[in-house]
Amino acid sequence: MENRNLINLGKQILEAQSFSKLIGATLTKFAAGEVILEIPIKDSLLQQNGFVHGGVLSYAADNALTFVGGSVLGPHVLTSEYKINYLRPAVGEKIIAIGTVIHAGKRQAVCRCDVQVLHHGEKKTCATAQGTIVTMDPTANNNS
Amino acid sequence: MENRNLINLGKQILEAQSFSKLIGATLTKFAAGEVILEIPIKDSLLQQNGFVHGGVLSYAADNALTFVGGSVLGPHVLTSEYKINYLRPAVGEKIIAIGTVIHAGKRQAVCRCDVQVLHHGEKKTCATAQGTIVTMDPTANNNS
Amino acid sequence: MENRNLINLGKQILEAQSFSKLIGATLTKFAAGEVILEIPIKDSLLQQNGFVHGGVLSYAADNALTFVGGSVLGPHVLTSEYKINYLRPAVGEKIIAIGTVIHAGKRQAVCRCDVQVLHHGEKKTCATAQGTIVTMDPTANNNS
Amino acid sequence: MENRNLINLGKQILEAQSFSKLIGATLTKFAAGEVILEIPIKDSLLQQNGFVHGGVLSYAADNALTFVGGSVLGPHVLTSEYKINYLRPAVGEKIIAIGTVIHAGKRQAVCRCDVQVLHHGEKKTCATAQGTIVTMDPTANNNS
Repeated sequence: MENRNLINLGKQILEAQSFSKLIGATLTKFAAGEVILEIPIKDSLLQQNGFVHGGVLSYAADNALTFVGGSVLGPHVLTSEYKINYLRPAVGEKIIAIGTVIHAGKRQAVCRCDVQVLHHGEKKTCATAQGTIVTMDPTANNNS
Repeated sequence: MENRNLINLGKQILEAQSFSKLIGATLTKFAAGEVILEIPIKDSLLQQNGFVHGGVLSYAADNALTFVGGSVLGPHVLTSEYKINYLRPAVGEKIIAIGTVIHAGKRQAVCRCDVQVLHHGEKKTCATAQGTIVTMDPTANNNS
Repeated sequence: MENRNLINLGKQILEAQSFSKLIGATLTKFAAGEVILEIPIKDSLLQQNGFVHGGVLSYAADNALTFVGGSVLGPHVLTSEYKINYLRPAVGEKIIAIGTVIHAGKRQAVCRCDVQVLHHGEKKTCATAQGTIVTMDPTANNNS
Repeated sequence: MENRNLINLGKQILEAQSFSKLIGATLTKFAAGEVILEIPIKDSLLQQNGFVHGGVLSYAADNALTFVGGSVLGPHVLTSEYKINYLRPAVGEKIIAIGTVIHAGKRQAVCRCDVQVLHHGEKKTCATAQGTIVTMDPTANNNS
């Protein structure tokens, strides 16, 4: 698929996720093997200390992992599992989740995601994740 | 702390998390070593196939882990890291995240969370998570 | 398969793993959904402080996860991924790894393993793991 | 500490781990933020299909993570937790585990490890891991 079609497909899928619309996520890159998902930080995404809630960073990692897995496996994929390490409090204007593929087979891809926060023009990594994306089939028992 | 005070403190913290209010989470149990967080399923929490978005299940696991860690370590805690496996698509009326403590020291607790979906009166586990909750201090570099 | 045949098959596979023989692991339970792997602690399994090396606990968790996955999926399985939390230093006479199944589909099982250490007749959990076991097929890209 | 002293300290610690000697691991790089651990493949490290046992790859990842964490935090460190994804069967002459630091604070470092296999002069990544290394203290409850 051409790159322009690929990003249009990605945007359609994101648009069809009502939770992604609630969060306010947009797809700014969707190429085979690299995906960037961005989330403008707003008050409704914070926790009690004024930092972006860990659940928002998890959402960003989970979704960037699914999309980047789909960029090499095709659109019918699910996140099977992932782990995330939080590195520092996220304070700033925008969350930027960068998904990349470490290794892809026919049925699954192992992917990575660095979650950055943009603050006063400077990007800092605030979380990092690693997980498995699988193709859907009638016997699959996964969900994302 | 008495149990009634413990759950009131938990509810105050949850209430102070604007993202938890956006999601619609409530705390139905907050005892030392066991926490239950519930989320009524609504359209804005879904993904493109009509299932609850994985990011919502991740939020539920992350937050139940943080709260149950806090139930034994005290209120000033953060999730340092966790991993989650998605087990089946989440369809139904309510998400129920049950956090328990596996092992607690002075500065950290290793906790588990089973995320269930309630559908037509039946509960099924749709995700399971394991992670580390740490006490905050000036040198900490974590976030939730 | 009858239980007696199941444990005999398990013991044959363990016997065919030269690394498991180097470690000195034995299978003391191998039923559908629960497996126990035991390792007598000897000097060659320690690290610099006299504790059992984390790599031994990881081996125990990895192998108990694979075997318990195989107990429900069939013998041709691999560990796709897992995470492990170390809980306390392992000092004692024997390592006991208890694998259980959380959820199994046709092609994969999500499993858990508690790794205990037996010391002066008392068992303490020293590590806990969670992971995914998958059936092997020509397109699989996993290894254990 | 100078680099020559750093690698000598690393080699002394590895030498003091009897399990690392049983495995046959050597440290070929130990600089602040990057560590390489190598393991010649021998029959006693295999599983039933002739591949390197997953437990050996886990040991390599665990130990490279601990050492690279120690390269920035100081020698008294432990692996608190990690997750590993197996990517392909490991067949060849040598296992090469490359540990790097993603983010370090005063008390903990989040690190990554790529585990490669060298076969006929070609290196392929066969596993990838991410984990948390912490400094030891009287209240710590971790182990490696």
